[in-house]
Amino acid sequence: MTTDHTPMWKDLGLNIEAHDALLSVLGQAYGDIYLAQKKRPENMGYFDFVMSEVHGQRIQELVDARAEGRKVIGCYCVFVPEEITLAAEAVHVGLCSGADFAMDEVEKYLPRNTCALIKSSMGFKLAKVCPYLECSDLVVGENTCDGKKKAYETLSTMMDNLYVMDLPQVKSAEGKALLKAEFIRYKEAVEALTGKTIDVAALKKGIAIVNDKRKAMARLAALRQGTVLPISGLDALIANQVFFYDDPVRFTASVNALCDELEKRIAEKISVIPEGTPRILVSGCPMAVPNWKLPAIIETSGAVIVAEESCVGERGCRNLTDDSSDDLDGLIDALVDRYLAIDCAIFTPNTERTDHIKELAKASKADGVIQYTLNFCQPYALEAMPIEKELEEGGLPTLRIETDYSQEDMGQLQTRVEAFVELLK
Amino acid sequence: MTTDHTPMWKDLGLNIEAHDALLSVLGQAYGDIYLAQKKRPENMGYFDFVMSEVHGQRIQELVDARAEGRKVIGCYCVFVPEEITLAAEAVHVGLCSGADFAMDEVEKYLPRNTCALIKSSMGFKLAKVCPYLECSDLVVGENTCDGKKKAYETLSTMMDNLYVMDLPQVKSAEGKALLKAEFIRYKEAVEALTGKTIDVAALKKGIAIVNDKRKAMARLAALRQGTVLPISGLDALIANQVFFYDDPVRFTASVNALCDELEKRIAEKISVIPEGTPRILVSGCPMAVPNWKLPAIIETSGAVIVAEESCVGERGCRNLTDDSSDDLDGLIDALVDRYLAIDCAIFTPNTERTDHIKELAKASKADGVIQYTLNFCQPYALEAMPIEKELEEGGLPTLRIETDYSQEDMGQLQTRVEAFVELLK
Repeated sequence: MTTDHTPMWKDLGLNIEAHDALLSVLGQAYGDIYLAQKKRPENMGYFDFVMSEVHGQRIQELVDARAEGRKVIGCYCVFVPEEITLAAEAVHVGLCSGADFAMDEVEKYLPRNTCALIKSSMGFKLAKVCPYLECSDLVVGENTCDGKKKAYETLSTMMDNLYVMDLPQVKSAEGKALLKAEFIRYKEAVEALTGKTIDVAALKKGIAIVNDKRKAMARLAALRQGTVLPISGLDALIANQVFFYDDPVRFTASVNALCDELEKRIAEKISVIPEGTPRILVSGCPMAVPNWKLPAIIETSGAVIVAEESCVGERGCRNLTDDSSDDLDGLIDALVDRYLAIDCAIFTPNTERTDHIKELAKASKADGVIQYTLNFCQPYALEAMPIEKELEEGGLPTLRIETDYSQEDMGQLQTRVEAFVELLK
Repeated sequence: MTTDHTPMWKDLGLNIEAHDALLSVLGQAYGDIYLAQKKRPENMGYFDFVMSEVHGQRIQELVDARAEGRKVIGCYCVFVPEEITLAAEAVHVGLCSGADFAMDEVEKYLPRNTCALIKSSMGFKLAKVCPYLECSDLVVGENTCDGKKKAYETLSTMMDNLYVMDLPQVKSAEGKALLKAEFIRYKEAVEALTGKTIDVAALKKGIAIVNDKRKAMARLAALRQGTVLPISGLDALIANQVFFYDDPVRFTASVNALCDELEKRIAEKISVIPEGTPRILVSGCPMAVPNWKLPAIIETSGAVIVAEESCVGERGCRNLTDDSSDDLDGLIDALVDRYLAIDCAIFTPNTERTDHIKELAKASKADGVIQYTLNFCQPYALEAMPIEKELEEGGLPTLRIETDYSQEDMGQLQTRVEAFVELLK
C-alpha cells in the first residue's frame, strides 16, 4: 500500500478490522498465486498495481467522482448494461462476491445450500467489507437464477438503494420485449439518479467505450489461441476480473498495451509454457476476485488455461453492440440484441452455449474442458451433464468440478485435476 | 384390484415388473397410513377407491377416451390452465412425481443436488412406470424454477411430445403480457392437437368445470377451519391429490358429497381429534402422490393438519376465474389474472404468499406452521427463512423441515415434529 486509506474506509462505514483481515488474505494469496508465476509479461505490472489498490486507489477515485457530483452504480452481473450507466457519466463497477465472509451471519438469512457467490454477496454486505458496495449510489441486482432472485429480496431489507432488473428466461418475442422494457426502465432510473438525460450522442459514447473494452478483451483472447502462448491463464483471468472494476478507458488502454507486448512475444516465440503443455478451456460459473482456486490448481498441475467460457471471461466480453442507429430506440434495440445474445444457463433452451464451447475449444486448441460449477448453482450444474456428453462424443475430454470458496477441498481438487491433465498428455 | 390391468399397462409400454413393485409399495403405504386412520368420513370411500385404481380404472378411462378420439394432456404444475384443455374436450391429468424411482439412472442425467420432485419426474419416465405419462398425447412442462426449467431440456430428449410453457418471474405488465402470449400459444397447441376450435362457449364451459372443482375444494377447506374438525389432514390431502387425476365433474360431485357429510359431522360435533389437539398449517412445496411422509408423521405425533399452503392444496385450488366476459380475449385475460395470482415462490417479490399464510393460519386457527421444503428446492428454501421470521414475530411458532422422498430421515423428522407439537400444547 502506498497510501493509508483507512480514513476513507472509515468514512464509508467499513468494518476496519474485518476489512484489514480481508486485504491481508487477498494480498497474501495474490503474492503466492500471481507474483510467484514465471515469465510474466511486463505489462501485467499495471494489473498487479490495480489489484494491490483494488480497495484503495480505485475506491478513492470513486469517492472523488462522487465529490464531483458523479454517481456510482454497483452491480452483480453481466446483464446490467454498462453502456447506459456510462451514457449518464456515472461509474459502473462490479461488486465483491468472490470470497467467504461472515458465513455464520449469512446463514441466518440464506439456506446453507446456496451457492458461494450469492452467500458472498450477502457476507460482504453484512460484514461491511466491500467498499464498492458502500460507495454505490445504486446497487443493481437482476433476476437471473432462483438463488439470486430470491436473495435480492432479503438483500433489499439490508440496503435502501437496491434496484432489481427483471430478465427473461426464453429468447422469445415476449422475452425480448421484457428485456427492452427493463433496459428502458434502467435508463430512466439512471437518468433519475444522475439528473442527466441520456440522448443519442451520450448513449453512442457509452456504447463506444464498452465496445472498445470488449474489443481489447477479444484481442487478448485471440492472442492466447496460438501454440506460442504469451500469457498464463491466471494472468488473463486477472484482466477479465479487473474488467469489472477499473476505469473503462484506462482499462482498455492497459489491455491493448498488454496485447502489444504479447504480439511481440509471439513474434519472438516467447511462450509461458513448454511445448506440449495440455491446454484447458475452463467453462461455467464466474470467478470473482479473489476466487483463483481452480485456475491456480490447473496451472500448477502441468496444464495451462487458454480460454474462459464464463461471465468473467468470454460470456461477459464477447459480442459488440451495433452503434449504427441514429435514434435512441434503435440504440436500445441494439443493446437488447447484444445482451440477449448472452448464453447464460438461465436461458432455456441454451444450446448456443454448447455450440460456443465447441467453437472456443477448437479456436483455442484446447485439449480438454474443465466444467467449473459452484456447489448448488443449479443452472450450470444442470447444463454441465448434457454438455459433457456432447463434448465427449465429439472427442473432447471433460472434467466436471463442483466446489465453493473454501480451501478444504484443495487437495482433492488437485488430485482430480492432475489425473485429468495426465490423461491429456 | 378388481380387474387385471396388466394387458393395458403392457400396451402402454410400462415396465410391468417395476410397475408392480411400485403399486405394491403404494398399496402397502396407503393401507398403513390411510386405512389405519380412525373415525374417517364414509365418503372417503370414493377417494380410497380412486387411489386403489389410480393406475387402473382411471387409466382405462383415459385409454377409452383416446379410443373415442379425445386427447390426453399430462402436466407437472398448477400453472397449466386446465380450463383450456377442457375447452377442447381433452383430458387434463397431473403426472407422477411423488416417489423415488430409478435414481441411479436419473443421476446420469441430473445432478444429485436436484430436488426429489424433479428427479422423480425423470425417474418415472426412465423406469416406464407412469401410465399417465405413457398415455399422454401432449406433456406440458413449464419454466417455473431453475431445476425444472433445465430438467425439461433433458426430458425433451427422452420424449417427442414435450411442450414447455414459459412463465414470468415478475408480475409486471411485461410478465402479464408474457403469460397471456403463452396461454394463447397453449390454446393454439391444444387446438392443433385436438382439431377442435376453442370458442367462447367452449372456454366458458371449461372455466365452469374448473371453477366448480375449485369451489368444492374451497368448501372442503372451510369445513376444516372450525374447532370441531370432521376430517383429518391426511384425508384432505388425498382429496387435494386426487384433484389432479380424476375426472373433474365426478371429482367435484364426490368432494361435495364428502362436504355434505362433514357438515353433518360438524352439526353433530363429531371431531376426528380430541379437543386441544395442536392444529398445524403445512406450507411450502407440493406433496405429490404417494408423498405422505411428513403429514403422516405430523398426524401420528399428536397434532392435526388443518390447511395446506401448497400447490397440492390452497395454491392449486384457490381463486376462481371470472367467466363474465363474452369474448375470447376477455376470457383469456380472466384466466391470466387467475393464474398470475398464484403466489408461487418463483415470483419476485412474492410478499402476497406470506400474507396468505398469515390469513390462512388465522382462518384455520392454526397453532403453528410447519414449512415443508424439498431438499435443493431453492425458491421455497429461500422464502422459508424470511417467512419464519415474520410468522414468529407475529407470535406463530414455526418449524422448517427440509427433506426428500427417502425414508431414511423418518426417525429424525418424527423427533423434531414431536418436539414442535409439544411446544404448541
